[in-house]
Amino acid sequence: MAEAVVKNERVLEVYESFVKHMKKFLDEQQLNHEEYTNFVEWADRLGRSGEIPLFLDVFVETYVLEAKYKKLPGTEPSLLGPYFTEGSPLIEDKPAVMSMRPVDKEKGEKLIFRGNVSSVNGQKLANTKVEFWQNDADGLYSNFDSDAPDFNLRGHFYTDENGDFEVHSIVPIPYQIPTDGPTGEFVSAAGYHAYRPAHLHLMLEKEGHETLITQVFFQGDEWLETDVANGVRSSLLTGLKQVGDHKEASLDFVLRTE
Amino acid sequence: MAEAVVKNERVLEVYESFVKHMKKFLDEQQLNHEEYTNFVEWADRLGRSGEIPLFLDVFVETYVLEAKYKKLPGTEPSLLGPYFTEGSPLIEDKPAVMSMRPVDKEKGEKLIFRGNVSSVNGQKLANTKVEFWQNDADGLYSNFDSDAPDFNLRGHFYTDENGDFEVHSIVPIPYQIPTDGPTGEFVSAAGYHAYRPAHLHLMLEKEGHETLITQVFFQGDEWLETDVANGVRSSLLTGLKQVGDHKEASLDFVLRTE
Repeated sequence: MAEAVVKNERVLEVYESFVKHMKKFLDEQQLNHEEYTNFVEWADRLGRSGEIPLFLDVFVETYVLEAKYKKLPGTEPSLLGPYFTEGSPLIEDKPAVMSMRPVDKEKGEKLIFRGNVSSVNGQKLANTKVEFWQNDADGLYSNFDSDAPDFNLRGHFYTDENGDFEVHSIVPIPYQIPTDGPTGEFVSAAGYHAYRPAHLHLMLEKEGHETLITQVFFQGDEWLETDVANGVRSSLLTGLKQVGDHKEASLDFVLRTE
Repeated sequence: MAEAVVKNERVLEVYESFVKHMKKFLDEQQLNHEEYTNFVEWADRLGRSGEIPLFLDVFVETYVLEAKYKKLPGTEPSLLGPYFTEGSPLIEDKPAVMSMRPVDKEKGEKLIFRGNVSSVNGQKLANTKVEFWQNDADGLYSNFDSDAPDFNLRGHFYTDENGDFEVHSIVPIPYQIPTDGPTGEFVSAAGYHAYRPAHLHLMLEKEGHETLITQVFFQGDEWLETDVANGVRSSLLTGLKQVGDHKEASLDFVLRTE
């Protein structure tokens, strides 16, 4: 195992920088040994429970993204999160209709979401792959914690010749991250709530451009300011309008060239 | 579970400080998303393998101790490490003779180690509890990775009326931290070696004083400068002298008042 690992200068560079900043944090906080051992005991339970990806995606990923992208042009990324899964079905129809439980079994308000994908150089990006996933009206994700069929409310489709897409789905709802394990213990001890505002997940892929992993949030959501994962960006907010018997929303996306 | 956790202002204070410093680290390092997801994948394996305490004790604990103690009077602490275990036998004889495999089965050079325990206020500390543990001539720890009887080379005893103690044991040897799991992958990728210099572990407990967890190292050890766990302090170094058929060494310890 370890014998096969090749020295990687980037690992050393990142670790040494981490130690430099960790020392400043520790100088400031002066943890006593009981605090340290309490942390180790909790971290070990976090690790053994399999919640490391959950914890990192909720409490660290947003800062990784901010550091790299806040000064760059183009649409801001937001968390990939722990609920992405490979292998979603291709939806060829335009507009794209997300796979849902059989008629009337998919609870929630109907949503039509429209977007346009362009490049930071101004070009409209036809044939961009749009991966789309979201929770259901119970706040659960297929393939993870819901009883829906695999890949329910997950799919991918492509933009048209103008870079436009339209997808028919349901309105996602705010939900709580899991609170029954070590991550939940941290949330309680810190005095946070466990809610994320409602959001759509999108991953946009186009040759010659950096893949954009982001989320779309809705104005008026009560958890925007206090998102437990701190993933909201003002540029990712859109309005949700009532149109006839359904809601509509839209947002445009701008990809960075590679 | 999580419902029972009470809000703890210290958790929030420490976490917010950690985020502040982590942002500076991330601003400096600009991790891309692939680097982040590689880290999450490794950290998840680290956690599931149960190596979180090993990793933290080797790569983090020393900085926790330095931050709190480097400016304080008294003997410097060093790592508790992952190999301490509760319940070691009381050794009533003076000098204390560590429990060892039956005669001539305990390999290694015989060691007589002497110490004196006093308070930062100058008082000699009689009847101080000395917990003592170390590795064997194969570099292994009883109760963990060696095939020795439980509590081999582990025990506790008390200082005499002058704060002195003498313990008969064997000379510990340098050893490698485990390299066959995710911690070893990190060691290889960073280009480190996995060695710790030879050391004795001591934990000194006396009413009215802060418990001192520390280690004793030996001049001339080839791994002093590059200890993988960075636990060596110059004030914890002593000489190993040949006296007749055995080695002798000594160090005095000064406890901080509470």
